[in-house]
Amino acid sequence: MSDSLFNTPLQIINIGIGDFAETLRQQDVPVVEVEWQPPAGGDANLVEILKQTDGSRELAEKIDAANQEAVERILASQPRVVDVAPAAQALGLAGRIILHAGPPISWERMCGPQKRAVLGAIRFEGWAGDNESAEALVESAQVTLSPNHRYRAVGPMTGIISPSMPVLVVQNETFGNYGFSTFNEGRGNTLWFGICDDATLERLRWMRDTLAPAVKAALHHGGPLNVFDIVAQGLQMGDECHARSAASTSLLVKTLMPPMLDAGVSSRTVADIIRFMANNNHFFLNFTMAAVKATMDAANGIPDSTLVTAMSRNGVDFMLRVSGLGDEWVVAPVSPMDEAVYYTGYSVADAAGDIGDSAIIETCGLGGMAIAGAPTIAAFVGGTLADEIAAVEQLRLITVAAHQKFSLPAMNSANTPLGIDLRRVVESRIVPFITTGVLHETSPTVGQIGTGVARVPVALFERALAALAHQWGLATSLPRPESVKLEPVKVASA
Amino acid sequence: MSDSLFNTPLQIINIGIGDFAETLRQQDVPVVEVEWQPPAGGDANLVEILKQTDGSRELAEKIDAANQEAVERILASQPRVVDVAPAAQALGLAGRIILHAGPPISWERMCGPQKRAVLGAIRFEGWAGDNESAEALVESAQVTLSPNHRYRAVGPMTGIISPSMPVLVVQNETFGNYGFSTFNEGRGNTLWFGICDDATLERLRWMRDTLAPAVKAALHHGGPLNVFDIVAQGLQMGDECHARSAASTSLLVKTLMPPMLDAGVSSRTVADIIRFMANNNHFFLNFTMAAVKATMDAANGIPDSTLVTAMSRNGVDFMLRVSGLGDEWVVAPVSPMDEAVYYTGYSVADAAGDIGDSAIIETCGLGGMAIAGAPTIAAFVGGTLADEIAAVEQLRLITVAAHQKFSLPAMNSANTPLGIDLRRVVESRIVPFITTGVLHETSPTVGQIGTGVARVPVALFERALAALAHQWGLATSLPRPESVKLEPVKVASA
Repeated sequence: MSDSLFNTPLQIINIGIGDFAETLRQQDVPVVEVEWQPPAGGDANLVEILKQTDGSRELAEKIDAANQEAVERILASQPRVVDVAPAAQALGLAGRIILHAGPPISWERMCGPQKRAVLGAIRFEGWAGDNESAEALVESAQVTLSPNHRYRAVGPMTGIISPSMPVLVVQNETFGNYGFSTFNEGRGNTLWFGICDDATLERLRWMRDTLAPAVKAALHHGGPLNVFDIVAQGLQMGDECHARSAASTSLLVKTLMPPMLDAGVSSRTVADIIRFMANNNHFFLNFTMAAVKATMDAANGIPDSTLVTAMSRNGVDFMLRVSGLGDEWVVAPVSPMDEAVYYTGYSVADAAGDIGDSAIIETCGLGGMAIAGAPTIAAFVGGTLADEIAAVEQLRLITVAAHQKFSLPAMNSANTPLGIDLRRVVESRIVPFITTGVLHETSPTVGQIGTGVARVPVALFERALAALAHQWGLATSLPRPESVKLEPVKVASA
Repeated sequence: MSDSLFNTPLQIINIGIGDFAETLRQQDVPVVEVEWQPPAGGDANLVEILKQTDGSRELAEKIDAANQEAVERILASQPRVVDVAPAAQALGLAGRIILHAGPPISWERMCGPQKRAVLGAIRFEGWAGDNESAEALVESAQVTLSPNHRYRAVGPMTGIISPSMPVLVVQNETFGNYGFSTFNEGRGNTLWFGICDDATLERLRWMRDTLAPAVKAALHHGGPLNVFDIVAQGLQMGDECHARSAASTSLLVKTLMPPMLDAGVSSRTVADIIRFMANNNHFFLNFTMAAVKATMDAANGIPDSTLVTAMSRNGVDFMLRVSGLGDEWVVAPVSPMDEAVYYTGYSVADAAGDIGDSAIIETCGLGGMAIAGAPTIAAFVGGTLADEIAAVEQLRLITVAAHQKFSLPAMNSANTPLGIDLRRVVESRIVPFITTGVLHETSPTVGQIGTGVARVPVALFERALAALAHQWGLATSLPRPESVKLEPVKVASA
């Protein structure tokens, strides 16, 4: 095994002796509990590939060097919000197209909330007046569907982006590349939760006509906004910046409002925007997502790297991007949402599958990787801060570095695990988890029904490793897995 | 010993076996370490009083009931900022008077920073044009000095309040009583740090002429501000609300600005105020102080109660108020600031003594009592979150309750220790500590030179117990200690 596995101090690693771990946990000692399993689940083909890619072999050294390069690019990235613009202009969308979270999917296979959000976006664009005629447009291919990631964009939950929606334009100043996300809609009846009624459309219009120009004016007047500065502070204030962005949203208010006022935005509008942000603790989530997208794209496409650079789900399928595979993503069915904490009256039987582009956050040392930063969501992983700390320590077993800018106050300022190495995941069967919400599959009015963690399917890491094995020319009886090519569309303006 | 000592779960209490504690601490297990000492330091007189006031004796039952009443009043309190007004009007100040933090003190004995702040305030009021003539006014008694607490007010550090300074008017809606504090001046050359130059005066004028009317307008338009709602959220975001109010200040921005804009305050002023608050992480401190003052005053004056209702220092003397002694405060010299973390180039030799009315915060389950809420100040008590948790657990040994509204995310949402019982302090020699700053004694330009904890002198608790013993008519050879009577001045308007 690579030395880099152990580049950060562990507390206690407990393999297969549950009682001892339980005792320690009762005493609030962080415990990393690893149930003993044969490497790679005992799969001889995978074990053989792992042997070739580990230790002091030439290939292993190439991989480690590539992963090091990927980590350095992540740490060197400086994502800043530089502008706000309509998606059509910023992403270069032409014609009637609706973007969505997750891998490409046919209308027939799309999950309930994402379908409902697509129809809502078509009504928002004015291409149809009701859901029936909107659906007819999709079914007759007069509206096309495409993943956000193809356009360097990301959206939370259903993740719908339509051409006239405003997007945050984030530039990675170090490498020049861009990332995009919509504004977060907040609570209640919203597209991101798979609901669209008149209030949803009215809120979307307010975001387009009032919120977006005001934020644009603030950025033009005050200059680019350093997203990771706010994220780093948010981690000191109870956010892990995926399921919880309460503190970072507050920090954004005090950063953004003075230049917005200076730029001449009316008092009434600024007051409304502060109230909107004060009522939406997820407001900063989309800033984080676009910044992480711009960061992780800069670390993608490094030959031989086994680090994960994006994870994305549409409620049905989960796609994973690995740096060494470039724009070839591997795909597998999403995991069931059976670990979530459901609101009263709901259960996994009501749940849409794991959904959203937001899982890219976990590839950058945030969200699940930083869960000990948010003691208020300890229920996600066992109920106590000690459980959260143990979870972070376990994630160190599948990561190769730590994010120097992101630290965890409850772990004496230890930096968060960074750089998911699929070799370690395949070997240990420890998969990353995502801090996320759960949507109702069938109801057009309920929206969110729970929160909790979703596990990334281990099959994705196995497939990515098999694909790399073929790329490296290793002898293996594993077939080259199918993949999805998502070459980003080039945009002149960005 | 009273059962109430153990009304909250302890982790591990370690008496006198340092090695074992060290081992546990290395594993992040919270450890309460109590060096064994004879009760009351072996003082036979104190031991005899404690015997009479403990266990199942009639007096002990009266005390416990009185303490229960005090705790109930604290928990029932609803302090809200209802207005902003000039100190002269709100506090009923007549003529040339300067209020200061801590117990009454003569000009000759006053510490350096407080003297310099008094002179600055005289210049701010326009009663003198320079420090020499200002000092002449004090020395000739043409300006009088008085403690803030006499006027139901509190001020941080030097704590100077002069008649034209605006104060936050906090009303305890449950009991009707009021508490007052100035606005926090922020960093740099400021009266609260014992510095006064032209920039200091200019800032004070801006606070009086621009900040105060704007906050007043926001309160009149938006209604009273619930201080403890923000404090409770701040504790979830890394504040302990004495040495650190960064999160609560951010939360205040998003609460206060919409009504301020709605009230018609100009965009430029609102932008300036947000910038001022964004540059001053202590801005919310004075809100907390005034709210705690209005809360603890409501719990004062309960016959037989041994709970501490205020602590206050002027850099030379420390005064302590106990509910059962009403407006009779006991006084002792302040402790040396030898536990503080000094900025480079400074040491305890440069330090003014422990100073400020802000120590009232610790009587209400905040500050030192909540230190595990602020992992970023772990250096104050040993360097790690585990040290902070151990410190809070130790404070449970001298408190009788927990504050139901204030909880600590790093301690699985345990409530903070509340209700310092002087019997437990005298018996155990464990004294409360205050999270505070340190000022330069002699320099007129340096200001703050460190941060850390200050211990409350144990002599104060001994004196208060002796005073109560005389009040109870117990046979004791201890003399009745001298005390300071600070009957609050009645104010018609508030």
